[in-house]
Amino acid sequence: MSSNILRWCTTVAVLVLVQTPVVSGEQIPQDATEQIKSVLFKQQAAWNNGDIDAFMESYWKSEKLTFSSGGETTRGWQATIDRYKMKYNSRDLMGQLTFSELEVTMLAGDAALALGRWKLERDEPAGGNFSLIFRRLNGVWLIIHDHTSTEE
Amino acid sequence: MSSNILRWCTTVAVLVLVQTPVVSGEQIPQDATEQIKSVLFKQQAAWNNGDIDAFMESYWKSEKLTFSSGGETTRGWQATIDRYKMKYNSRDLMGQLTFSELEVTMLAGDAALALGRWKLERDEPAGGNFSLIFRRLNGVWLIIHDHTSTEE
Repeated sequence: MSSNILRWCTTVAVLVLVQTPVVSGEQIPQDATEQIKSVLFKQQAAWNNGDIDAFMESYWKSEKLTFSSGGETTRGWQATIDRYKMKYNSRDLMGQLTFSELEVTMLAGDAALALGRWKLERDEPAGGNFSLIFRRLNGVWLIIHDHTSTEE
Repeated sequence: MSSNILRWCTTVAVLVLVQTPVVSGEQIPQDATEQIKSVLFKQQAAWNNGDIDAFMESYWKSEKLTFSSGGETTRGWQATIDRYKMKYNSRDLMGQLTFSELEVTMLAGDAALALGRWKLERDEPAGGNFSLIFRRLNGVWLIIHDHTSTEE
């Protein structure tokens, strides 16, 4: 009897360890920040290949995706890719993209805020900063919200 | 002995229940969204009283607060209030603030994204949209990051 109780106690004790919550940043996998940065570097490479479709793979393919810029919010993945393809309708306009000063703040085990700067080298150079909300959906980090500003 | 083991088991069993994590949206208090909206309405009221100090109480009083706008990021609570007081250095410039189209997306039990629009009624009207990251810190919802855009 007492040995059964002990066995049960061990099981429960293990549960205590397993259930330790992940709500603050402390217990998030070490590599979450690196995973998110690598999504952004993949996006930069896609842009610099002139491939907006590949660039858009880092965004949540949902009607709930929101992209804010210049006081307006574009809603849904399709409207967002349409906006990019309209605004950057030639390789020259796309220019050469560089992301820099990336800062990732974990908000939960499956949510993060990423800040950074963007720069487009082209005939009319452009640049600014962005705030991205990432969610880990089915194990993949995707942008669910983007707020991008252009330097004034 | 066996009764001591049982007492210990009860303690551990209670721990299991207490430790249940809040990482998905499911266990979020029903009113979190309303709490966050009320923080914004309080902020709007403070602004319309010409009280930037009260307005700033909704921001995380930390050097880690980030405020992005027009391609630049202001870092820290003090730099953020200084920016507001410099940019809106008269009651006329502050105008009458209205927040609208507030949308709160919970990211965790203690983290949320709030989107919305802002409008300033004054001699030179202004408006745009914002993306706010809220954290619940010591039970209080505070803005830890703000990305605000002005209509072009």
